[in-house]
Parts: sequence; C-alpha cells; structure tokens
Amino acid sequence: MSSTVAPKIVLYWLEQSKAHRILWLLEEIGLKYDLKIYKRENGLAPEELKKINGLGKAPIISVEDPSLSPEPIILSESALITEFLVSNYAPQLAPPPSDLKANLRYKFYLYYAEGGVFQPLLVHHILDMVHTASPFFIKPVVGGLLSQLKSRWLNKAYDDHLGYVERELEGKKFLLGEHFSGVDCLHSFNWQSLEKLGALNSQRYPRLMEYWNGLQQREAYKKAQEKVKGHKALL
Amino acid sequence: MSSTVAPKIVLYWLEQSKAHRILWLLEEIGLKYDLKIYKRENGLAPEELKKINGLGKAPIISVEDPSLSPEPIILSESALITEFLVSNYAPQLAPPPSDLKANLRYKFYLYYAEGGVFQPLLVHHILDMVHTASPFFIKPVVGGLLSQLKSRWLNKAYDDHLGYVERELEGKKFLLGEHFSGVDCLHSFNWQSLEKLGALNSQRYPRLMEYWNGLQQREAYKKAQEKVKGHKALL
Repeated sequence: MSSTVAPKIVLYWLEQSKAHRILWLLEEIGLKYDLKIYKRENGLAPEELKKINGLGKAPIISVEDPSLSPEPIILSESALITEFLVSNYAPQLAPPPSDLKANLRYKFYLYYAEGGVFQPLLVHHILDMVHTASPFFIKPVVGGLLSQLKSRWLNKAYDDHLGYVERELEGKKFLLGEHFSGVDCLHSFNWQSLEKLGALNSQRYPRLMEYWNGLQQREAYKKAQEKVKGHKALL
Repeated sequence: MSSTVAPKIVLYWLEQSKAHRILWLLEEIGLKYDLKIYKRENGLAPEELKKINGLGKAPIISVEDPSLSPEPIILSESALITEFLVSNYAPQLAPPPSDLKANLRYKFYLYYAEGGVFQPLLVHHILDMVHTASPFFIKPVVGGLLSQLKSRWLNKAYDDHLGYVERELEGKKFLLGEHFSGVDCLHSFNWQSLEKLGALNSQRYPRLMEYWNGLQQREAYKKAQEKVKGHKALL
C-alpha cells in the first residue's frame, strides 16, 4: 500500500463494456470503491461520461490518494488502470521489479489486451451488425460475402492470436506462469466475448478454455458478477 | 544510455503495417539498427514472421544489450517497443520520472494508440473491403447499409476520439505539451491512415492537422521514409 490511509476510489462502470474487468480487479485487490453504473443509449456510451474525463469511454476510475497526488487522479484505458492499481496497491499481482524478462512479459500482455485479439473480435461484431441490418432480399448474398471475409481474414486473425496464447499457456496456470496477475483480469473481456461468439472453444483451444473456466471460479470474479446483477456486463 | 557499448538492434519491418512508426522512432533516437523488410502475402503478414517471436505480427524488435540482459530481448507490440526504447536509450523522449501527472499522460497515450481511434479505423477498412467485394448487383444496397453504419457508429467514434485529441492539443505543440516524445511517433500511423480516408481533415480538426503536418517535416521522419523507399509503408 502506498499509504496507511485507504484511497478513495470511484469506478465508472458502463454496461456491456470493458469496465467489468476493472470491477473484478478491484475485488481481487480487495480495495474499497464506489461503483457508478451507466446505461448505454442506443447502444452507445452516454454523453454524460464525457464530463468525467473528456473522452467519455468506460471504464474510468478516479483515485483520491494524498500519498500519491494532492489532486484526484482520473484515468481511462483499462490497461493503464490495471497497471496503476497493481503497482500502487497490489504489487503481488505483477512480477517482481528485478525480473526484467517477466516484467516485459507482463507489459506485453498489458498492451496486447487491446492490440491483439480484441481487434478481430470488434470486426466480428461489426460484420454481424452488417448482416443483421441487411434487408431480407440481400441477406443471403451479404451472408456469403461476410462468410468469405470471415474465412479469409477473421479466422486467420483468431488463429494467430488464440493459437499464440494457447501455446503460451503450455505448462502455465496463468498468463505469466504460476501466479495470478493483473493481466489475467485484463484479458477476461476477450475470452468471455470470444466464447460467446464460438471462436473460443475447448476443441480448438483446450488449455485456454481450461484457464478461462478456472478464472470464473475465483471468489473475486463471482463477487464482481454479483455487484452488477441485473445489468448486462459484457457484449 | 544504459551502456557505453551500443546495443545491437534489429527491426522486423512489414510493409503496410504499424512497423513504420518504430522505424521513425529509431531515427529520432539516432540508434543504429538493422532493418529486415518483409512483404505481405495476399494482404497478410508472412508466416515467416512467426519464427521470430511466435506471434508473427510486425513490428518486432530484437535487442542485444548485455547491460540489460545476457540474452537477446525480443519484443512485439509497438507501444511496448516505444516504451522500452525510450526508457533505455532516450529518456528525454518521455516526461521526467518525478512528474506523476505527465507520466500518466504519457502512459495513457502509449495505451491509447491501440485502444482509441485505431479501432474505428480498422472497422472502416473492413467495411470498405466488404463494399469492394460486393457483387455489382447488390453494391448499391450494401453501400446504403454501410453508409448507415458509418453515420451511426463510425462517425460518432471518429468524433469522440479525434475531437478529444483536438481539444487536448489546445495550447500544445505535441501530444504531451512543449516537447516531442515517443507517443508522437506512436500515434502517427493513425493520423496518416485517417488523413488518407478523409476522416482527418483541417476543416474539422485544424490543430490536429497542423500538428500532424509539422511532424512530417521532421528530419527523422523523412529519413525513415527514405529507408523504405519503393515499399508501401502504410495502409
């Protein structure tokens, strides 16, 4: 802990967004926080969120901790929030600073949460939106077109990323090895969404599925689910 | 410099990829490096790249620097490469470690390069691919459908992100203020691609365009362009 006085934390949580992994992380760390729940408007984040930090994307956290800064710290970008919370309040959820190799691996996964499989996942959602919105008389042709794009680009992208993580998990319990860390929370959004889309399954990626099933058994994960009961957490 | 002996650096550069910003960064820092140029195969990264680090995405760098590690360090993810090169070889391209607020801003932009406007940009490219691939008899209907999606989702996403950076640049010369930093290189891929797509223009985002035009006048930027002459650097 950076201070003996508990920090005052607010999490701005939006339904069906990446905010859910930060809620889970706060539960893993055991920090106290206020939870502010926002609803989507026509599928989009409400304009109200822009008042918090100008960008208007969830999650956002506000941290009041005089031992770090005289002013409240307002952060967006889930990976930055993860890095910040872990480094200040839960250093046990990152590799020891002396281990360069492990730290570069940790940082790789911090960046890779948005830089990797999330990108084809986003494209997948948008292609499905195109298909759903197609008028009935072109739906079959559009469907064929999207199938081509999926088999040419999307499946290759999934294979590249999921295949990579599947190989990386060999002999490991968590992304970094024996110990649960901040990046295990951070990547959960991807696994949950990909499982729902059928791209992540135990036939093709058995280790990844076993790992992901294990994460969902954690007490903190269940507590996070409980906190937003009645809201749709993920895509 | 972390050592008096120059590090041995290899940049694995793929045409039409995000690798170009790392080439520019190496020129800004003035580091010596070997440049390995890869071509796309049917629009995709060649399988050969997977031999370097298993993931097969460009850019990748390999750094041999005994003052840091007895083994070569192999890194992917442009933002991690930027953070690593700046922190070890060009600390002047990041805020001073004592300035928490400026450092969180720097880190925000490190994460935001993939987490922000790149995402609608990727969707834009894919939607254009869908349109191009449509058979002539459904092209008008598909075009109408994509226009709807663009006006409903894509333009909103562009406005959110570009509008945010436009406001952030008020009174600043670079993303972080008076001084050029690693994140100015890192975000260049987005500006270049968005300008080409017409989403970034001086009518709507005058400060951002002025900033981006200024970056392209830098000697190191021109040198990076020169190094890969004859290859298509960007999307």
